[in-house]
Amino acid sequence: MPPTLKPSFSPPLAHTSLTSLLKTQLASVDACILEKMQSPVALIPQIAGYLISLGGKRLRPLLTIACAELCGYKGKRHIQLAACVEFIHTATLLHDDVVDESTLRRGMCTANTLWSNKASVLVGDFLFSRAFELMIEDGSLDVLQILSKASSTIAEGEVLQLTSSHSLELTQEMYLKIIEAKTACLFSAAAEVGAVVAQAPQINQKALSQLGRSLGIAFQLMDDVLDYTANQEKLGKKIGDDFREGKVTLPVILAYEKGLDHIFWEEAFKQEARDEKSLTRATYLLHESGALHEAKALAQKFAAKAIDCLNIFPDSSLKEALQNLVYLSLHREA
Amino acid sequence: MPPTLKPSFSPPLAHTSLTSLLKTQLASVDACILEKMQSPVALIPQIAGYLISLGGKRLRPLLTIACAELCGYKGKRHIQLAACVEFIHTATLLHDDVVDESTLRRGMCTANTLWSNKASVLVGDFLFSRAFELMIEDGSLDVLQILSKASSTIAEGEVLQLTSSHSLELTQEMYLKIIEAKTACLFSAAAEVGAVVAQAPQINQKALSQLGRSLGIAFQLMDDVLDYTANQEKLGKKIGDDFREGKVTLPVILAYEKGLDHIFWEEAFKQEARDEKSLTRATYLLHESGALHEAKALAQKFAAKAIDCLNIFPDSSLKEALQNLVYLSLHREA
Repeated sequence: MPPTLKPSFSPPLAHTSLTSLLKTQLASVDACILEKMQSPVALIPQIAGYLISLGGKRLRPLLTIACAELCGYKGKRHIQLAACVEFIHTATLLHDDVVDESTLRRGMCTANTLWSNKASVLVGDFLFSRAFELMIEDGSLDVLQILSKASSTIAEGEVLQLTSSHSLELTQEMYLKIIEAKTACLFSAAAEVGAVVAQAPQINQKALSQLGRSLGIAFQLMDDVLDYTANQEKLGKKIGDDFREGKVTLPVILAYEKGLDHIFWEEAFKQEARDEKSLTRATYLLHESGALHEAKALAQKFAAKAIDCLNIFPDSSLKEALQNLVYLSLHREA
Repeated sequence: MPPTLKPSFSPPLAHTSLTSLLKTQLASVDACILEKMQSPVALIPQIAGYLISLGGKRLRPLLTIACAELCGYKGKRHIQLAACVEFIHTATLLHDDVVDESTLRRGMCTANTLWSNKASVLVGDFLFSRAFELMIEDGSLDVLQILSKASSTIAEGEVLQLTSSHSLELTQEMYLKIIEAKTACLFSAAAEVGAVVAQAPQINQKALSQLGRSLGIAFQLMDDVLDYTANQEKLGKKIGDDFREGKVTLPVILAYEKGLDHIFWEEAFKQEARDEKSLTRATYLLHESGALHEAKALAQKFAAKAIDCLNIFPDSSLKEALQNLVYLSLHREA
C-alpha cells in the first residue's frame, strides 16, 4: 500500500493565471518569434512555424517575462530574450525528436516525420544560431553566458541520457542529474535571464534561478509519471512511449528498487521484451509498488521548493500567478 | 575540346608553408581544443576527440591565426578564438555526416557510423554551445556577431542544399549561393575574426573577410571537382559520392548546360538511375564536355581574387604563406 502523502503546499486561493496576466507580452513574444524565424530559405520558417504553432505551454518564455516583471522591469528587452529562450527550446525539441525517433508531439506528427530527420537537424541548428544572433543583438554578456552555459549543459544531459538511461543500473541520483541538465537547466536560465535583464539584486537572481531549476525538475518528474498515467488524447502522444523506447525513468527506478517482480523488469529492459502486454504489466507494477505515487511526491517536494523561492518577493498578483503556475505544473493532465 | 586556360596567377616562388610558420600557435590551438572539449560525460570527448584527431587541414583556425598576426596582433586571444572556429566546423561536420548519411571521412569511419546518428547530433550540439561559451568568455560582441551570423548562414545554406541540390534545375548562381553559405561563410568569418581581434582598420578587416570568402568558394569548387577526379586513397572517401547521393554540383550543372547527352543526366538525376556504370559515364561526360576543366577555372578565378585581397598588406613571410595556402588549396589531391 502506498503511504498517504500530506500535500506539502496548498492550491492557490485565487486562480490567477500567468498566461492571462501576461497576455499582451506573450503576444509580443509570439510576434517576435514569427518575425525572427524568417529566412529566404522557405523550409526554415515552414518547419519552425509548424513546431511553434503546435502551441505548447510557452512555459519558458513565460518564466522570463514573469521573472523580469516580478523584479520590476519596465522595458522591452525581455520580449526578445523570451523569444530566444523559446528558439533554444524549439531547437532541442527538433533534435530530441530525431534522437528519440518520436512520431507524435502534442497530438500532431513530429517535424522529422513530416519532413525528415535531416531537415529537423538543420532547422534546429538554424534556430539555435538565430537565438544567439538575437542575444548578441541584445548585447548583454551576462545573458549570453547564462544561456550558452544552459545550452551546453542541455547537450551534456542529452548525451548522458543517451548513454545511461536504458540501463536498470541507473540510480535515482544519476536520473535527477540527467533531468536537471536536460530540462531544469533551461527553466532555470529562462527565469534567471528575466532577473538579470531587470538588474535585480544577486539574491533575487539566485532565487529565481533556483525557482526555475526546481520547477523544471518537478515538471520533468510529472512528465515521466504522465507517460504512464495520462489520458492518451490529452497527452497528445502515445502512453508508455518511455517504456517502449526502453527509457528508464524515476518510476521504473523506484519500482525496480522495491523488488516487486525484479525478473519482469530485467526481462523488459535487459532482454528488450517490451510489447504491449509488458506495458500493461509495467503500469500495474508501477501503481502497485507505489512507485508512481512516490515519483509524484518527489515532484511535489520540488514544486514546494520552487514556491519557497518566491518568499523574498513582496506579494503581488504576479507572484501569486507564478505560485499558481508551479501548482498547475503538478496538477496537469498532459 | 576544352579551351586552354592561362593560369590567372603563378605558383609561389618560395614554398613558405603557413602550417610550419605557425606551428607553435597551431599546437596551442590543439591544446586548447583538447582542454575545452572535456566534459564529465565521457562520450563527448570520445567523439569530439575522434573527429578532431582525424586531423584535417585545420584551415579555418589557421586563417584566424594568420590573419590576426598579419594585422600585427601580438596577444593570445586568437588561440582560443581559432579553437572556437574549429569547434563550430566540427559541429557542422558531425551534423553533415548525419544529413548526408556519410560513412567515410578522411579514410576513416564517420562518427555516426562508429557511434550513432543520435550521438553525432547531440555531440555536435555540445561543441556548438561550447564554442559560444568560449567566445563569451573572450568577451568581444563583434567576434560573437561575426560567428553567430556565420553559424545561422551555414545552417541556411545546408537547408537550401537539402531542398534544391538534387535537381538539375539548380542554376550556377544558386549553386554558388549554396557553397558561399555552407562553406565560404565560415572561412570568411574565421579570417575576419583574426583581423577584429587585432583591431585592424575596417579596410583590412573587410579585405581579409573577402579573402576568406573567395578562398572558401575556391576550396569548395575544388572539393566538388575532386569528388570526380581524385585518387580515392588520397581523398579518404569514395570517389563519386556526390553523384551517388544525387547531389548536383557545378561540374554537373555545366555538363548539363552544354547539352552533351541531356537524356543521360535526366535519367541519372530525375529517375535516380545512378549505379556504378552511370558514374563511369558521368565522369566521362564531365571530362569530355570540359565541365570539370571549367569548374577548376572558376576555382582558379576565386583563388586569384583571394590573393588580390592581400595586396593592401606589406610583404612578409606570413603574407607569402597565405598566398601559398590559397595556391595549394587549388593544387591539392584531396
